[in-house]
Amino acid sequence: MNEVLKSFLINFSLKDGLSPDRESIKRQLSNMNGMYSDQKAYEQLIKEDPLIYEFYDCGILEKESSIAFGTSITYPGKVGNEYFMTKGHFHNIMDTAEVYYCLSGCGYMMMETMRGNWETQKMTTGTAVYVPGNYAHRSINTSDLEPLVTFFAFRGDAGHDYGKIESKGFRKLIVEKDGQPEIIDNPKWEN
Amino acid sequence: MNEVLKSFLINFSLKDGLSPDRESIKRQLSNMNGMYSDQKAYEQLIKEDPLIYEFYDCGILEKESSIAFGTSITYPGKVGNEYFMTKGHFHNIMDTAEVYYCLSGCGYMMMETMRGNWETQKMTTGTAVYVPGNYAHRSINTSDLEPLVTFFAFRGDAGHDYGKIESKGFRKLIVEKDGQPEIIDNPKWEN
Repeated sequence: MNEVLKSFLINFSLKDGLSPDRESIKRQLSNMNGMYSDQKAYEQLIKEDPLIYEFYDCGILEKESSIAFGTSITYPGKVGNEYFMTKGHFHNIMDTAEVYYCLSGCGYMMMETMRGNWETQKMTTGTAVYVPGNYAHRSINTSDLEPLVTFFAFRGDAGHDYGKIESKGFRKLIVEKDGQPEIIDNPKWEN
Repeated sequence: MNEVLKSFLINFSLKDGLSPDRESIKRQLSNMNGMYSDQKAYEQLIKEDPLIYEFYDCGILEKESSIAFGTSITYPGKVGNEYFMTKGHFHNIMDTAEVYYCLSGCGYMMMETMRGNWETQKMTTGTAVYVPGNYAHRSINTSDLEPLVTFFAFRGDAGHDYGKIESKGFRKLIVEKDGQPEIIDNPKWEN
């Protein structure tokens, strides 16, 4: 195969992260059943089934020499007292890293390894967060008003593994307490 | 070696691309002797030796699983009628790609392969440009007033090869003609 690769461009608004050039992948609350700790609050909110986040897959060739990129937009809101967040994922090629550059809004990057190391980084406009390999990672929007918008980049063949994190979730949650974000243990992990 | 990798964050202003957390690498005109086509104009301007561009090397481990990232800021100006630009480089691992996301300003990404394929992409605020592997690439600021600011990401072990492009330069130049950018042949390539 004599593959001719061409450059290309995609526009992403710096204001809201949305692209006029591509269709985003959308995750509504109904796509996240069991992922929030307050199931009653989930069942209340599911009637509205709000859009929790959306992101772009730019269709980059899945090769170790390529770079996948796009924007991710997590909307403001809570399920009970737990902030809207992305599902979170490991990479299929576990040791591959990812970079997120926060374009607007604020929140946290939550990270944990299979062995139970966990870390958070606070994101505000202009913050670049380096997620090392072997860490599952999830974006959490702690603003009441603004979407959390990031530009991300990772190795083209890294792949997404949602399964490992889907059943029990992350070891830590970020919830609102007295109007402030607080990191707490995930009760499902105590069972 | 049992390497424990930690996440970290670095701030880059969305306004001017500068980081309060790291020292940038600066390229003044005197670092680019022979790279602009109008040597007389170069010698005139070298008295001032203006800052042409600066960028960040965040010191990421040079591994195929890591992602190097940072911002690049190319200032407005011209040497004769040729716009301020970066030196441009291939990657040492030739087939590795790079992504540039334009945070402010406008200009062009100029790209060419060893075999002579060349491409340009116009960058404006919010444009993400995918530079495929095997293309040398250079940022060119075509604004009279504003810096061209990009956030870039590439594979951690890709490496920079400036040598191949340093002697003859790129096959194409971007110059101002009647107040507009124009792509012309590089006269050095005609010799």
